[in-house]
Amino acid sequence: MRNDTIVAIATPAGVGGIAVVRVSGSDALSMALSHLSVGTLEPRHATYCRFDDIDDGIAVYYPAGYTGEPTVEFSCHGSIYVQQAIVQAFVDSGARMAEPGEYTMRAFLNGRLDLSQAEAVADLIDAATPAQHRLAVSQLRGGYAEELKALRQQLLDLTSLLELELDFSQEDVEFADRSQLQDLLHRLTDAVTKLIASFRMGNAIKHGIPLAIVGAPNAGKSTLLNALLNDERAIVSPIAGTTRDTIEETLVIEGIPFRLIDTAGIHQSTDTVEWLGIERSRKAMKEAEIVLCVCDSTAKDDETEMILEELKNRKCLLVVNKADLMDNPRFGNIEPGSACYWISALTGEGIEELKHGIAELVGVNRDASGILLSNARHLEALRNVAAALRQVENGLSDCIPADLVAVDLRDALYHLGTITGDVTNDEVLGNIFSRFCVGK
Amino acid sequence: MRNDTIVAIATPAGVGGIAVVRVSGSDALSMALSHLSVGTLEPRHATYCRFDDIDDGIAVYYPAGYTGEPTVEFSCHGSIYVQQAIVQAFVDSGARMAEPGEYTMRAFLNGRLDLSQAEAVADLIDAATPAQHRLAVSQLRGGYAEELKALRQQLLDLTSLLELELDFSQEDVEFADRSQLQDLLHRLTDAVTKLIASFRMGNAIKHGIPLAIVGAPNAGKSTLLNALLNDERAIVSPIAGTTRDTIEETLVIEGIPFRLIDTAGIHQSTDTVEWLGIERSRKAMKEAEIVLCVCDSTAKDDETEMILEELKNRKCLLVVNKADLMDNPRFGNIEPGSACYWISALTGEGIEELKHGIAELVGVNRDASGILLSNARHLEALRNVAAALRQVENGLSDCIPADLVAVDLRDALYHLGTITGDVTNDEVLGNIFSRFCVGK
Repeated sequence: MRNDTIVAIATPAGVGGIAVVRVSGSDALSMALSHLSVGTLEPRHATYCRFDDIDDGIAVYYPAGYTGEPTVEFSCHGSIYVQQAIVQAFVDSGARMAEPGEYTMRAFLNGRLDLSQAEAVADLIDAATPAQHRLAVSQLRGGYAEELKALRQQLLDLTSLLELELDFSQEDVEFADRSQLQDLLHRLTDAVTKLIASFRMGNAIKHGIPLAIVGAPNAGKSTLLNALLNDERAIVSPIAGTTRDTIEETLVIEGIPFRLIDTAGIHQSTDTVEWLGIERSRKAMKEAEIVLCVCDSTAKDDETEMILEELKNRKCLLVVNKADLMDNPRFGNIEPGSACYWISALTGEGIEELKHGIAELVGVNRDASGILLSNARHLEALRNVAAALRQVENGLSDCIPADLVAVDLRDALYHLGTITGDVTNDEVLGNIFSRFCVGK
Repeated sequence: MRNDTIVAIATPAGVGGIAVVRVSGSDALSMALSHLSVGTLEPRHATYCRFDDIDDGIAVYYPAGYTGEPTVEFSCHGSIYVQQAIVQAFVDSGARMAEPGEYTMRAFLNGRLDLSQAEAVADLIDAATPAQHRLAVSQLRGGYAEELKALRQQLLDLTSLLELELDFSQEDVEFADRSQLQDLLHRLTDAVTKLIASFRMGNAIKHGIPLAIVGAPNAGKSTLLNALLNDERAIVSPIAGTTRDTIEETLVIEGIPFRLIDTAGIHQSTDTVEWLGIERSRKAMKEAEIVLCVCDSTAKDDETEMILEELKNRKCLLVVNKADLMDNPRFGNIEPGSACYWISALTGEGIEELKHGIAELVGVNRDASGILLSNARHLEALRNVAAALRQVENGLSDCIPADLVAVDLRDALYHLGTITGDVTNDEVLGNIFSRFCVGK
């Protein structure tokens, strides 16, 4: 079925000025010509023509298009009826409606993209913020897959040499240079470990960085949430599952999406229901990537210092509402790297500085060279690679037989291969491409 | 401002496989090249290139594109961020965000389309059914505007001759052949009258043909509504303003959109509130293009015959629920052209035949040559034309002075000209193009 001709609307669903219908496969050109008012289409030449009695538009023929197959794209008026009628005309000519992601799957199968690049296409299409976009583009242009691919190739060569030794096992020769292998294993383990560690941030950028606003009751947490949101109300969207207890809103600061979580005030309480709310606040605080601890310096409370104590070694900003912190020595024990911001949620004073401080704390924005892992499938594969590499290292240091070491090496190679698509199967491909939109 | 360079997303709003950003105006090419990774764009050649650091895609340059101006279209990945970033890049280069319909307005101003064709573009984009599509395409390809334009030109020539006589009024000459003028006036009046008459159907197709379901209480009207809708539940949409009394639903039968109106049962009543509901039913019946009169032949009622009497000379179908009408002589007095359908709303029996009968009754579907007026602005203009023509005819038969006749002729010419855009002003253009979507 993978060589048949497929058709779909490539542009977003709905009404617009124009829409593009894309047909790909061996019969794409002949099928298109059977509907068009022209006898031929020059490759890559935008030709104005009529499509049956349905519409006039621009047809472009690519001998090897996005999919690597013959492809024709027809730009028509963006009416619901016209779009459907043109797709239907192709179906009547024998084309099949494309499955979600089928164009990109074909591009992968035809060697136009590796698997991690194909996955990046979906991320790129989903990108709504600059940081998400940067993540996807980096992956699309090779990203860590290039490095992993190179390391995998070296490992593959050494594994082959090691396996060659098995054929000469009586003769006690070593084709595979053990120190070279050790060195490669270390470099690979290093790379894999770094990538695994970067997933927390990569995933946060992909889905929004969780930022909890905590503090004593009435410290001004909700006022701060509103003050943060007010400036960019337009891109605020309520998230499903919002509860009365923990309010979540999305806010983009300097191109990075954050999930702001407003929590219940933390304080000593014997009331069971209240205690449950406080537990929820602590959970949000624990799971957040960044915590804003809010206090009202016009009020006296014992909780702020206790909260700051709990937040040692965490990415935390102390936000003092209605007060100048500089004269307030009781917050002298904040961890290095944390900072204090004096704001007035009411007048908006200090809010911009605080936002900038939040973005600074994330840091990723400025580190253009930092490659981040954001794909959960890759994380799973890399964890398997790391486990296999540990087995290999243990095996080598325990001097276990080469054939057993080779098995673990093959395991590492296999999992590395699943990232780039050097190793794959239909089920994996099905899972990956089904999350694409139709038409890509 | 009309020669500056404008930019917009041309494809429907939202996320998709690809999107197209269109930039039009004298600086379109140089602006595009300042962002693209290629040094030049061959006319109409689909060139793969990079757009800044934002995306890779296909750029096509049209020396005279849709607008008649230099145009560049860039196909990018259909991500929200990518689309906005590319538009923003053009804005940063000095382009202006296009107003709704501005591309098509420029196409009109540059003589690419006449005004009625430009208006048809909006109708074409809005078309969701085959009949709406056919209406729009007919208008886009010239439609009645061609005929009106030709008649207007002839009238213009004769009017000029008539006005020339005024310069020679002392000499009592006739440059304008009066019988030729009379003949032309008749042909024009004929064309205008036919178009005005066709508006009822053209407008109905554009907005859905009103079809009222009436009958005695408990005749099975709502059951019939459900039975009609059940088959095509997917394209049913509730219309805003739906009241409990008269339920409206949209149904497409054989490509023609209908607005189904379910009404309260009609019967003799002295109850004031009930009487108001019945009045509403009669109003719906009166305003509908097509009426389905439903009766339950297992029940005896006096209302059905009374309703049928009121529906004389109307497009009406008698629908008999749970009965075989053929043996029922009391419905012998239905007007020719009307018909009876035996159905069972419960089992769905006869529903398909009824639907076909409804489409047959409309008839327009089969009459491909029938040109229909569907534009309210054109209707208004044509009514003014008709009034002016009547004045001219009266003037001629009353032998009033040629200069007064000429004034009425100029009036007719003016209103004819507003249809094709030979006569226009900024306010009219603003009204017309503001209803377009951005990007067209």
